[in-house]
Amino acid sequence: IVTHGLADPGRADRRVRINVSGMKFDTRERVLLRYPQTLLGDTVRRQRYYVPEEEEYFFDRHRPSFEGIFRYYQTGKIKRPSNVPLDVFAAELAYFDMGNLVIDTFLTEEGYDVSKDTLPEKEPQRTVWLLFESQESILSKLVGLVTVCFILLSVGTSCTETLPHFRNLTDQSFAHTGDVKTNLNIAFHNTFFQIETACIAWFCIELALRFYASPLKTRFVKDIMNILDFVVIVPYFVSLFLIMANVDVTGSNIIPGTIVRLLRLVRVFRIFKLSRHMRSLQMLGATLRASAPQLIMLVFFMAILVILYASIIYFMEMDHPDHFFPSIPEAFWWAIITLTTVGYGDIYPQTPLGKAFACICVISGILVIAMPLPIVTKNFEKFYKKNGNNPFKNLPLDNHRGS
Amino acid sequence: IVTHGLADPGRADRRVRINVSGMKFDTRERVLLRYPQTLLGDTVRRQRYYVPEEEEYFFDRHRPSFEGIFRYYQTGKIKRPSNVPLDVFAAELAYFDMGNLVIDTFLTEEGYDVSKDTLPEKEPQRTVWLLFESQESILSKLVGLVTVCFILLSVGTSCTETLPHFRNLTDQSFAHTGDVKTNLNIAFHNTFFQIETACIAWFCIELALRFYASPLKTRFVKDIMNILDFVVIVPYFVSLFLIMANVDVTGSNIIPGTIVRLLRLVRVFRIFKLSRHMRSLQMLGATLRASAPQLIMLVFFMAILVILYASIIYFMEMDHPDHFFPSIPEAFWWAIITLTTVGYGDIYPQTPLGKAFACICVISGILVIAMPLPIVTKNFEKFYKKNGNNPFKNLPLDNHRGS
Amino acid sequence: IVTHGLADPGRADRRVRINVSGMKFDTRERVLLRYPQTLLGDTVRRQRYYVPEEEEYFFDRHRPSFEGIFRYYQTGKIKRPSNVPLDVFAAELAYFDMGNLVIDTFLTEEGYDVSKDTLPEKEPQRTVWLLFESQESILSKLVGLVTVCFILLSVGTSCTETLPHFRNLTDQSFAHTGDVKTNLNIAFHNTFFQIETACIAWFCIELALRFYASPLKTRFVKDIMNILDFVVIVPYFVSLFLIMANVDVTGSNIIPGTIVRLLRLVRVFRIFKLSRHMRSLQMLGATLRASAPQLIMLVFFMAILVILYASIIYFMEMDHPDHFFPSIPEAFWWAIITLTTVGYGDIYPQTPLGKAFACICVISGILVIAMPLPIVTKNFEKFYKKNGNNPFKNLPLDNHRGS
Amino acid sequence: IVTHGLADPGRADRRVRINVSGMKFDTRERVLLRYPQTLLGDTVRRQRYYVPEEEEYFFDRHRPSFEGIFRYYQTGKIKRPSNVPLDVFAAELAYFDMGNLVIDTFLTEEGYDVSKDTLPEKEPQRTVWLLFESQESILSKLVGLVTVCFILLSVGTSCTETLPHFRNLTDQSFAHTGDVKTNLNIAFHNTFFQIETACIAWFCIELALRFYASPLKTRFVKDIMNILDFVVIVPYFVSLFLIMANVDVTGSNIIPGTIVRLLRLVRVFRIFKLSRHMRSLQMLGATLRASAPQLIMLVFFMAILVILYASIIYFMEMDHPDHFFPSIPEAFWWAIITLTTVGYGDIYPQTPLGKAFACICVISGILVIAMPLPIVTKNFEKFYKKNGNNPFKNLPLDNHRGS
Ligand SMILES: [K+]
Ligand SMILES: [K+]
Repeated sequence: IVTHGLADPGRADRRVRINVSGMKFDTRERVLLRYPQTLLGDTVRRQRYYVPEEEEYFFDRHRPSFEGIFRYYQTGKIKRPSNVPLDVFAAELAYFDMGNLVIDTFLTEEGYDVSKDTLPEKEPQRTVWLLFESQESILSKLVGLVTVCFILLSVGTSCTETLPHFRNLTDQSFAHTGDVKTNLNIAFHNTFFQIETACIAWFCIELALRFYASPLKTRFVKDIMNILDFVVIVPYFVSLFLIMANVDVTGSNIIPGTIVRLLRLVRVFRIFKLSRHMRSLQMLGATLRASAPQLIMLVFFMAILVILYASIIYFMEMDHPDHFFPSIPEAFWWAIITLTTVGYGDIYPQTPLGKAFACICVISGILVIAMPLPIVTKNFEKFYKKNGNNPFKNLPLDNHRGS
Repeated sequence: IVTHGLADPGRADRRVRINVSGMKFDTRERVLLRYPQTLLGDTVRRQRYYVPEEEEYFFDRHRPSFEGIFRYYQTGKIKRPSNVPLDVFAAELAYFDMGNLVIDTFLTEEGYDVSKDTLPEKEPQRTVWLLFESQESILSKLVGLVTVCFILLSVGTSCTETLPHFRNLTDQSFAHTGDVKTNLNIAFHNTFFQIETACIAWFCIELALRFYASPLKTRFVKDIMNILDFVVIVPYFVSLFLIMANVDVTGSNIIPGTIVRLLRLVRVFRIFKLSRHMRSLQMLGATLRASAPQLIMLVFFMAILVILYASIIYFMEMDHPDHFFPSIPEAFWWAIITLTTVGYGDIYPQTPLGKAFACICVISGILVIAMPLPIVTKNFEKFYKKNGNNPFKNLPLDNHRGS
Repeated sequence: IVTHGLADPGRADRRVRINVSGMKFDTRERVLLRYPQTLLGDTVRRQRYYVPEEEEYFFDRHRPSFEGIFRYYQTGKIKRPSNVPLDVFAAELAYFDMGNLVIDTFLTEEGYDVSKDTLPEKEPQRTVWLLFESQESILSKLVGLVTVCFILLSVGTSCTETLPHFRNLTDQSFAHTGDVKTNLNIAFHNTFFQIETACIAWFCIELALRFYASPLKTRFVKDIMNILDFVVIVPYFVSLFLIMANVDVTGSNIIPGTIVRLLRLVRVFRIFKLSRHMRSLQMLGATLRASAPQLIMLVFFMAILVILYASIIYFMEMDHPDHFFPSIPEAFWWAIITLTTVGYGDIYPQTPLGKAFACICVISGILVIAMPLPIVTKNFEKFYKKNGNNPFKNLPLDNHRGS
Repeated sequence: IVTHGLADPGRADRRVRINVSGMKFDTRERVLLRYPQTLLGDTVRRQRYYVPEEEEYFFDRHRPSFEGIFRYYQTGKIKRPSNVPLDVFAAELAYFDMGNLVIDTFLTEEGYDVSKDTLPEKEPQRTVWLLFESQESILSKLVGLVTVCFILLSVGTSCTETLPHFRNLTDQSFAHTGDVKTNLNIAFHNTFFQIETACIAWFCIELALRFYASPLKTRFVKDIMNILDFVVIVPYFVSLFLIMANVDVTGSNIIPGTIVRLLRLVRVFRIFKLSRHMRSLQMLGATLRASAPQLIMLVFFMAILVILYASIIYFMEMDHPDHFFPSIPEAFWWAIITLTTVGYGDIYPQTPLGKAFACICVISGILVIAMPLPIVTKNFEKFYKKNGNNPFKNLPLDNHRGS
């Protein structure tokens, strides 16, 4: 007869047999007692599964999964056996009551995001937060849709106003020739400026309310998406300031001209605001973050190849009377466009030697780009699958703790 | 001694041992009784395999497959173990008599199409149906071949008639200068119109007969392929109507001109009629349907990149005297052609900054296109394998129900 | 006590236990007796491994491999378990004496070529055969090297003679203005013709000797590589005939001009003769043969897309005053060059609609080309691995039959 | 009762049972005694794990790993089971004390570099070696950073001096019109020459100190990276010699001109010096070395296709009045640029036949390039993973020898 309890100091070395649907696992008591909160580590709870005739603990559970759970007791590391599906293993982890820490570690390793959102506790912050940050109620979905529409409208306007047809209208809002009052008058009668004002109004309201509702203000301020939300509003107020200050930015003054251009460009970045509303953009972002080392490596490899190949082609093509390579830095362009197989055809080698070399250039370009690609695509697949259901949400109901 | 029958309420908890060629599975009677229609769930049928000396049920069957079958009793989910080939697992499913529902679920998960065709019951519909819809008899194959020939002839004509050499002949059939009778006379002496009439005649007959033979008229009408069959016939009758109505469509009237162009374009879509006769086109279609989320995502990512990169390059290239980017929407074209590495060379950046940026543009384009590709190619491989033999058609003959 | 022999009719149903290094396989005598030539099927030979105390047959062999061997007795199909390396499984197949048929079936399934060469029995054919067909002796390697040199020389000449610098020399050998004697005189003083004559002489000798040595003449004649060997010799003799017949082929006569061109082109195909001497070219050929269905499908898909997209772009670009698409067949070229992302830039869409459509065109082209690629690359990997050592050549020496 | 010791000659055939956490392995004493240095092969050491009641050796260890360790005793080959992670298997190898030879063999097979660096024994060589060759102390990291900066400065100068803006300055340092003194004076007042002198000084010092500290001089001299280090220094001293010897290299003398060009090109190769300091470049190098057979094959395939396609297109396009293919060698360029889908657009086919053929050319190019790519990318992934932690550095602390 086996006794259960920590009283007996010598029993830690006793052999324990666990029979999982016919697959038998032998270990010592000591190993199981490493995790006393789990079903197997708790001598009292596991007693229920003891079969005295066979002197073993019998579990009518998934056998291959238990290999991974058993390994946790032996090594302290949780890993799903490669031939067991995620949801099956998740169910077994829950059955054997491995604890939230183990499950979170496991989920993180499988690529799941286990961080939880913090909901504000007080009203009316809670209502506002649910309206803007969650996508669960119909009203919050509507708010999201309105924001998406304003984003698209804003970006669309930024692109459209550069069309030759609208050039006059666009220049108008930046030509500050009269006094402040006239300028403002012209600006607010300009259709583009009106649309812009409407968009900015909505973006400001949304950002302000979300900041108001945010339970952790410092975390809110540090969040890259919120910084973006703020940055893309700024250009409007700078424009307004330029109008007020009566600064002429249409002329040949280089510095204000560059500033205006930057202001107009920043408005296009509003398209990234979509990522708050589109899961697929979040996946892309997560993939790029996870693949950052590979991407940096790719850019680094390409930089080396570009410098090398540009130098070689420069010296090779030097003798051709109409060569396209006046200097090595200008040959960089050829190297980039050839390595990536774009091949605009604006510059290309013309000497036999240069042509032969271009072949090496293209093939090595394809190789160097192809090398890190599988790592990046695997990352994407991982994040893509992760967007499926959390395996711990749909657990089968035969959890033993409920019976 | 173990008794078999549901009479004894206490025996559901009794341990049962199943020995599959030496691999032992322990469970409780209750688990097996969940599926009483199966071989293991039926206490009477399984009795035959009982070995009293060993107190176990002995099956001289494939061991790794049984891991997957056993899991079905434990969790209600059927999944082929990854190291077991499809046909072996199918044979084991049949041996253990898991039932059509389980087998269909399993096949659907493996990518097979388990929906059955409905054959009309009455004659002559049945004969007509077999002639046009199945590809099994020689006669039906011949009918299929004739249709394919007419499709190719029809598409070939549509392409050929645009050649400068045949331009006069083509224009003739759309120039309605005289009265109806003259128009019709001209039209029916035109070689292209004669070929078109022959094709349309066959397509009409085929569609009408298939509709006549169809056992489920509403399903027939809703089927996308049948709608296509109908749509590609329409242009001919509209042309005929235009001739009758004596509408001049060769002139500068924009609306009728567009209509004629659409009519002529629709005729080329007849090429999709081939998909009824070519398995590989059906595979392509199934792959694209299954990969729709990835493809939408790909287009969405590209749209964002195109807008962003077009804006950036527009502001970067603005200062170059002969730049190719008059507006952001026109820069979209450059962004598309660069992201996809086509690089026609009609427009390209010329400032050093623009060139450096183009590098980022190309690399990110390759990455974004490459990301969803493995998912799409895996879908294709799945559908491609599916076109092999159904694993339940070639089962080994040692099925226990036959012995 | 278990008796061994086929005398007892009732014993076929007796249970047999096989212990492979601790992994136990239970089956019935009947199953093992299906293959009496094998170690396990032969009751006398297997007796040696019987352990009476345990009532089992004990084999101190690789456990996971036996899963695959055991399955052969149960289902008659041989398949290597996915987690067992090829050479290990091969060693186990040999140990359990599964017979050449099983091993050949298995090797064929793994992608190995198990067909054996037939060596001629008599001399001197045998010596000649070993010299030209095997690559094992130093002399045969030297002969191979000479052939490769002649191939390269011949192909190199074919390419070089088209250079403007050598144009006169090339034309000379085809200008038959004088009488036969003069023509021959001119020809045989022409350096290119001299080289050609030397190459042809070697190729003729080699082909004649190989035919002479070939043990199966009909198989030799039907072999595609031998047909190629013959075809690439023919142009020389046709040239010689033209010189003899005094046919002028330099003038504007279209038919003889085309013939001369074909003759000159055929000479370049001699490069395929290399495949007899380069394993990597044989691999490429085997991959292309094995991937033929996918390649046909790829070409078929592209053909459909090209027809469709060419038609659409034709109607879309029609209104642009300087459009590049005079007819649908001429738009095919654009569609091909865009689908494959080559983008020469000689023709491209210019209307906004056409540009937007080109984007779809490129993306679908990438998708359609990418889809069958993994199947083709997997075929290549299979054939590439196959070129490693035959797993049955380096078997471990602990084969039980030798002890 | 089982006795342990080599005294009894008959006991080598005795059966031994090893129970690894419930998974049982049966073998004969003889098999284990093959490797007497290992834990299982040493009858005295393994005695500790003997459980007399069960007549077996019990190990509370990872079960799936032991399959691979057990196989080593049977076949003498070490291989990690595919479903066991690397670090787990490494821990088990250490536990069962398989010895350094087995572990090194295993690591080499997994792609790890097990060669050890030889540290010089005496001072001050040891200090210098640690400073330049290891990257562990802060000071050695600083030295590495300085070297990287000098490399970048040197390569940057080489590229910049080709800019039209700096052309005069560049030519100056190569124009040797006056006497030696004047030349040297001009040179050392030239900014580019000053920078170059500084870089060379550092490179010389570094190379000299590393040579001084190197414990194995011959190995140092043969190392490809050290040869590179030396070669990229040479151009400076040749330049200096040219100045001293008063050789004019700016004129039309072809040979000195080519030498100067080579000298300037060699300086750009200094970028490869970075690979001593960047792990990712070492990975790229290792991948290319490991993929050399595939790359040679790829180049070989492309060469064959290029020759073949260039010949075909040459004869196809011959009749077009403005064709771009004056000779087959000039058509090589088109074939390369088309096979790789670069498509500069400088030359392209214009006849319908040539265009149709170009399609085949592109598709076969994509196929041929794609075929060896997965092998290359897998090599890269292997070397990329290898750069993670060595699995034997972070072993779990429950090693039995320490207890
Ligand atoms: K291009
Ligand atoms: K391209």
